[in-house]
Amino acid sequence: MAEDRLIQRMILALRNRATSVSTLRLGVGDDAAVVAAHPHSDWVVSSDAFLEGVHFWADTHPAHSVGYKALARATSDLAAMGATPRFYLLTLALPPRRVGRWLDEFLSGLREAAGLFKMTLAGGDTTRNPKVFISMTVIGETAPGRAIRRTGARPGDLIYVTGALGAAELGLRLLKNSSRRAMKTSLPLKAHLYPKIHLRWGMWLAQNRVTSAMIDVSDGLSTDLGHLCAASAVGARLRADQIPCVPTPRGKPNPLELALNGGEDYQLLFTVRPNNLKRLRRAPRFAELSEIGRIVAHRQLTLVRADGTEKRLVPRGWDPFRPK
Amino acid sequence: MAEDRLIQRMILALRNRATSVSTLRLGVGDDAAVVAAHPHSDWVVSSDAFLEGVHFWADTHPAHSVGYKALARATSDLAAMGATPRFYLLTLALPPRRVGRWLDEFLSGLREAAGLFKMTLAGGDTTRNPKVFISMTVIGETAPGRAIRRTGARPGDLIYVTGALGAAELGLRLLKNSSRRAMKTSLPLKAHLYPKIHLRWGMWLAQNRVTSAMIDVSDGLSTDLGHLCAASAVGARLRADQIPCVPTPRGKPNPLELALNGGEDYQLLFTVRPNNLKRLRRAPRFAELSEIGRIVAHRQLTLVRADGTEKRLVPRGWDPFRPK
Repeated sequence: MAEDRLIQRMILALRNRATSVSTLRLGVGDDAAVVAAHPHSDWVVSSDAFLEGVHFWADTHPAHSVGYKALARATSDLAAMGATPRFYLLTLALPPRRVGRWLDEFLSGLREAAGLFKMTLAGGDTTRNPKVFISMTVIGETAPGRAIRRTGARPGDLIYVTGALGAAELGLRLLKNSSRRAMKTSLPLKAHLYPKIHLRWGMWLAQNRVTSAMIDVSDGLSTDLGHLCAASAVGARLRADQIPCVPTPRGKPNPLELALNGGEDYQLLFTVRPNNLKRLRRAPRFAELSEIGRIVAHRQLTLVRADGTEKRLVPRGWDPFRPK
Repeated sequence: MAEDRLIQRMILALRNRATSVSTLRLGVGDDAAVVAAHPHSDWVVSSDAFLEGVHFWADTHPAHSVGYKALARATSDLAAMGATPRFYLLTLALPPRRVGRWLDEFLSGLREAAGLFKMTLAGGDTTRNPKVFISMTVIGETAPGRAIRRTGARPGDLIYVTGALGAAELGLRLLKNSSRRAMKTSLPLKAHLYPKIHLRWGMWLAQNRVTSAMIDVSDGLSTDLGHLCAASAVGARLRADQIPCVPTPRGKPNPLELALNGGEDYQLLFTVRPNNLKRLRRAPRFAELSEIGRIVAHRQLTLVRADGTEKRLVPRGWDPFRPK
């Protein structure tokens, strides 16, 4: 059973009426949930699991990077809603052999990320486990009603991405195959260990009401564009030659494959109505963006190559439940 | 390293200034954190980890009970702050063999608890793991400034508990030793599998400003009274014959030992200034309470037996990091 279907099953089984004075504006199924907590702001909340043996290897990944990335991954879901991050809650399960230096370095990396994103620890829990298990809950804010959902894309909307795709997957492969020394200077390795998240872009897009839908590319473009299109009940046509790929030595692995199916880049993927393009072009860092395709009514993802040939794009990004 | 020291280390390593428009009223170190989100209410947030092999055994504990208890445990921390529960976020890691019937029953138990506590799913994450790993984040509300902390106990305050202690630990022992059939009708077993949490007491105490400090007894009276006293920089004298214990067959295991050191009863333990006693006696269910001792200035826990002899009380409740 794939992760998406598992999540759908859980949402259906647990569905009930919102029971609160604080209205639940948007429930599960997006990057984060939105709660109308305050007359001047909505709260945006999300949880993310990060596991040794599934998402990282404690003998391969430096503990400092694990701490940084644990918060960065979760907070990227706030970026994808256009929210300003505020608080985090950490559940950390550790084997006894990791409570010494490993934990110090983990906490140092986490502290660095919290400083960078301006977030404050608001709670947590610790326990023991044979492997390191991290669950991070993040809380952010947006102006009322301004959180950007996955559901608003319409046929004719243009598709944008904030930067190059595939770097983190390339870094992961380098980490698995290379010597430690060779990797230190590698940009892809940095993209994998210390992913940049796009909070400023998210906030700018929310404040300026430019986008119709947004998601962060955590599981790979083919998978996350699939999520956005499924939530909006639309399809998409991507232009292969417009997708910003990272170069690879002698073209191996194939840069386009990496960009389509590699995970953990945490770029923002968003759609814009043609009549909002003028506003988007006024963005201070518009030049960073790539326009990579267009939303269509037919609910299918299509990749259009430079020579005009087409193929159907199947989600092949990260899924922890997919048989290997 | 004990869990308490590990948590202290994490809090120190991750401490920074609250960086938000929404002031963080109370940070980590209590049952939950409190955020001033709204002019008419504070938000109370907490996370709790619940693991196969540490907190439950998937072959012994029914999946339905695991689902119920996952939310009940976490929400008891909201009860201990006097908060009204609103939302929960679930991180669930599962081995592939648990995604069938086990997951259905887990979700059914969770749904039952969410209905009972009037809580709505606001997000979550799933992934695979060799064992079941649950991290639950809960969000509740109190009137501004009314959340009850652990820090307000003063010498002379009286110590109360909402009900009997030791039942859940007795139930756990029955579960480990008895045949399944014999256990079905057992009240201690029910206390272990479907713990009652004391939300109404928590809310009443917060609304009526009766208590000076409060905690839920999740790790055992000796440990949790220790937490409350440490947070308030005080000590306590407990009267052994006033502690409400559950009866055991032929007095084995010793009921007082169970009450002092058995975990997971989720009773509320709170302190009351003598001049607030009149108000406490007006509580609709005052008869449920037991007065078990008194707060003292000397920072030590003392158990006073019925014959007047005394012994120092050492925390011997649940600690996942304590060597066995």
